[in-house]
Amino acid sequence: MNHARFLIACRDLLGHDHVLTDATDTSAYLTDQRKRYTGRALAVVRPANAEQVAAIVRLCHAHRVPMVPQGGNTGLAGGATPDGSGHQVVISLRRLDRIREVDAANMTLIAEAGCLLANVQAAAADVQRLFPLSLAAEGSCTIGGNLATNAGGTAVLRYGNARELCLGLEVVTPQGELWDGLRGLRKDNTGYDLRDLFVGAEGTLGLITAATLKLFAQPAARMTALAALDSPAQALALLDLAQRMAGPLLTGFELMSDFCLRLVTQVFPQQRYPFTQSHPQAVLLELSDIESEAHARDLLERLLNAASDDGIVRDAIVANNLAQSNALWHLRESIPLAQSASGLNIKHDIAVPVSQVPAFLDATDPIVQRIAPGARMVTFGHLGDGNLHYNVMAPPGVDPARFLAQYQASVSAAVHDSVHAHRGTISAEHGLGQYKRDASAQYKSAVEMALMRRLKAAFDPDGLMNPGKVLPD
Amino acid sequence: MNHARFLIACRDLLGHDHVLTDATDTSAYLTDQRKRYTGRALAVVRPANAEQVAAIVRLCHAHRVPMVPQGGNTGLAGGATPDGSGHQVVISLRRLDRIREVDAANMTLIAEAGCLLANVQAAAADVQRLFPLSLAAEGSCTIGGNLATNAGGTAVLRYGNARELCLGLEVVTPQGELWDGLRGLRKDNTGYDLRDLFVGAEGTLGLITAATLKLFAQPAARMTALAALDSPAQALALLDLAQRMAGPLLTGFELMSDFCLRLVTQVFPQQRYPFTQSHPQAVLLELSDIESEAHARDLLERLLNAASDDGIVRDAIVANNLAQSNALWHLRESIPLAQSASGLNIKHDIAVPVSQVPAFLDATDPIVQRIAPGARMVTFGHLGDGNLHYNVMAPPGVDPARFLAQYQASVSAAVHDSVHAHRGTISAEHGLGQYKRDASAQYKSAVEMALMRRLKAAFDPDGLMNPGKVLPD
Repeated sequence: MNHARFLIACRDLLGHDHVLTDATDTSAYLTDQRKRYTGRALAVVRPANAEQVAAIVRLCHAHRVPMVPQGGNTGLAGGATPDGSGHQVVISLRRLDRIREVDAANMTLIAEAGCLLANVQAAAADVQRLFPLSLAAEGSCTIGGNLATNAGGTAVLRYGNARELCLGLEVVTPQGELWDGLRGLRKDNTGYDLRDLFVGAEGTLGLITAATLKLFAQPAARMTALAALDSPAQALALLDLAQRMAGPLLTGFELMSDFCLRLVTQVFPQQRYPFTQSHPQAVLLELSDIESEAHARDLLERLLNAASDDGIVRDAIVANNLAQSNALWHLRESIPLAQSASGLNIKHDIAVPVSQVPAFLDATDPIVQRIAPGARMVTFGHLGDGNLHYNVMAPPGVDPARFLAQYQASVSAAVHDSVHAHRGTISAEHGLGQYKRDASAQYKSAVEMALMRRLKAAFDPDGLMNPGKVLPD
Repeated sequence: MNHARFLIACRDLLGHDHVLTDATDTSAYLTDQRKRYTGRALAVVRPANAEQVAAIVRLCHAHRVPMVPQGGNTGLAGGATPDGSGHQVVISLRRLDRIREVDAANMTLIAEAGCLLANVQAAAADVQRLFPLSLAAEGSCTIGGNLATNAGGTAVLRYGNARELCLGLEVVTPQGELWDGLRGLRKDNTGYDLRDLFVGAEGTLGLITAATLKLFAQPAARMTALAALDSPAQALALLDLAQRMAGPLLTGFELMSDFCLRLVTQVFPQQRYPFTQSHPQAVLLELSDIESEAHARDLLERLLNAASDDGIVRDAIVANNLAQSNALWHLRESIPLAQSASGLNIKHDIAVPVSQVPAFLDATDPIVQRIAPGARMVTFGHLGDGNLHYNVMAPPGVDPARFLAQYQASVSAAVHDSVHAHRGTISAEHGLGQYKRDASAQYKSAVEMALMRRLKAAFDPDGLMNPGKVLPD
């Protein structure tokens, strides 16, 4: 079948309006969020439901047309961008946007892949439940994409990654069969865990069309504080104390260096530096209390007093109200924005065992300085998960684009080597896509790469599902 | 190679003492815990470490000798028992019993597969941490077996199944390669989730030799109560209230019918019926508090008062001390013992969505009565997970063995059909092994069975790893 006839068959299935081929219609689907990759596509197709997805996949499979599933197109690793051949079809899941079922008593809901994360959160809130996955793109990313990339975010410390928030899936296989695995069960030991194989596979083993998601009791109050400390090692001591004193009420633990805070207040002068004097590190703590705001405040103050008595914390600010709490979070969330406003920089999304964070920083900062003298380290992230966005900015006065061109490859290679030496990962929460596919393969054992290839071959022997992502060709 | 020469090669690898062939030495390995299955074996081999496991597997693979991995041999589905051919080798993991590493700051430890669950719990307690997996066999089951069967138990409501407690694995593939996936990371998105594929696969895809396990902060206090209620629907209302008021502090929620309590107090007269009058249902609640015993008691009393005000709870007993708390748990844990003492019975390990429990019981009790008039329903289990041990006893005066022979097949088939109709599972926490392998296959879609078979073929094309378990031949 030639391309023209293939497109006619697509239009027969989905209707004319949902098979996009004009550049003005398709361009938004062909470049990734960070504008690292721009591809071409035979078409962008927009099925309305799982049956249409299955029909389109069967058509593509029959005609050996490679497929690229796409949700909100907010991924940070180029996992949803087609290659430059113009022979691939982008399957947008955005029209599958129904909440199919809410079962408050079972603490679950079933959402279609194209639901915006914010809409899933809202559907849970409507029945006084919490869907805790939360990340910067929540207003534009889709739950299908969150699951395909096993998204992380700020609440992983307490609630886990997207993987841990999913009880069941509906998936279209690369051959176009529909697997109904939409179980809402906390316990089910009847065979191989297909669900977790599709979660995090970035659409290379099958295409997620819906998911059964876990809900939680809504907290009665959230309480935030910012603590000033001497070092990452002291931040670990604070984490230990917080876990002992607050246990599961601790829902956020974000580290940021003083340089990060200074950068935010420079770039956004309306945000004030929070402490009266400089301290090397700061930690944002969040408690989610089941009882009351008063109980949360009391616990947080006791925790910070104990940390102060132990010499761990040098200064601390406890938010007095929601506005102050939002302001503290806003400082943290402004770090990547302040970086962007300062020009291109070398970004990393790494994790090491939590206990290894200080040793990793002690070992790696000097390595980066040897390669790129004067580079400014923008170190912040989810310390409770060992996940740092260990970013590297040009020295003052150096053109960011030139710095990036000159140092990105060598700095990232050295950082990744150091991560590997500290038993860490070079992609903690963003996935591999096409961006980190080859780098990741360097650090995996031959056994692991072979097992992954066997899985790919078993599920997608024709190599049609999101080719060129996750696994090197 | 004939069998005699194969055994010589095994002894060359492991030493004479660790290749058992005499019936007196092997018999303990050849019958399952519930004495449903007795197999034969060419040998029981007892490697000392992962390298020896890999070497033995390579030997078996080279000579096409089927392998049956075994931990504490406490499984309830015959998953670790060889067949009757006498051609299979049982690989006992019991000698791999080291705790390799404890990283308190990372909240992880690495345990070898043969560690007793109780020893893993103790190693965590030694560094003031909690390893929350807890089940009746914890003094004799191994962590490798717990992971291979994705064991559940009483704390799943709060901490999840064995799957959720595992961050990384070391596995010997069916070809005898050693995969080091012992990561201690909370976030790692670099490819397919091999870990969760081996967890719950019951040794049919590879052989777990070690695991990185998640630890938690130890609670400051545990507080237990027993509440009397009218119905399973009221128990669900209590669960909802408890989740709203206690959130993550709620660590146990066990339902038991009045018949269960009466059976325990009949069989074990030293245990007293806890309430002053009969109530149709009872719920055991456990809170694990991070602050203090006083805080836990206050919260539990407020919860029970609110439930009483709402007409949910008719009576309640709050344990005043650890002895009373243990006595309440002992009532719950004595139910299966009281059943065993009363003779054989028809056992089920089912789960439905939590919200479906009342409807499932309303629908299924009459079906069982139609098949086996007068049968006594022994309904208890982990209501917080929707997991019931929905057991069926002979009517008074009827010989239990005869009852079992006459009704087991028809009752279980009807119960499982009803579970399936309520979107549940016929094996919630025990796995499939050989016992439920065929029954499970009846309820799975053709797509799911085909995907499972493709996984098996991809990892174990020669069919040598625990053949005849999980998947029908």
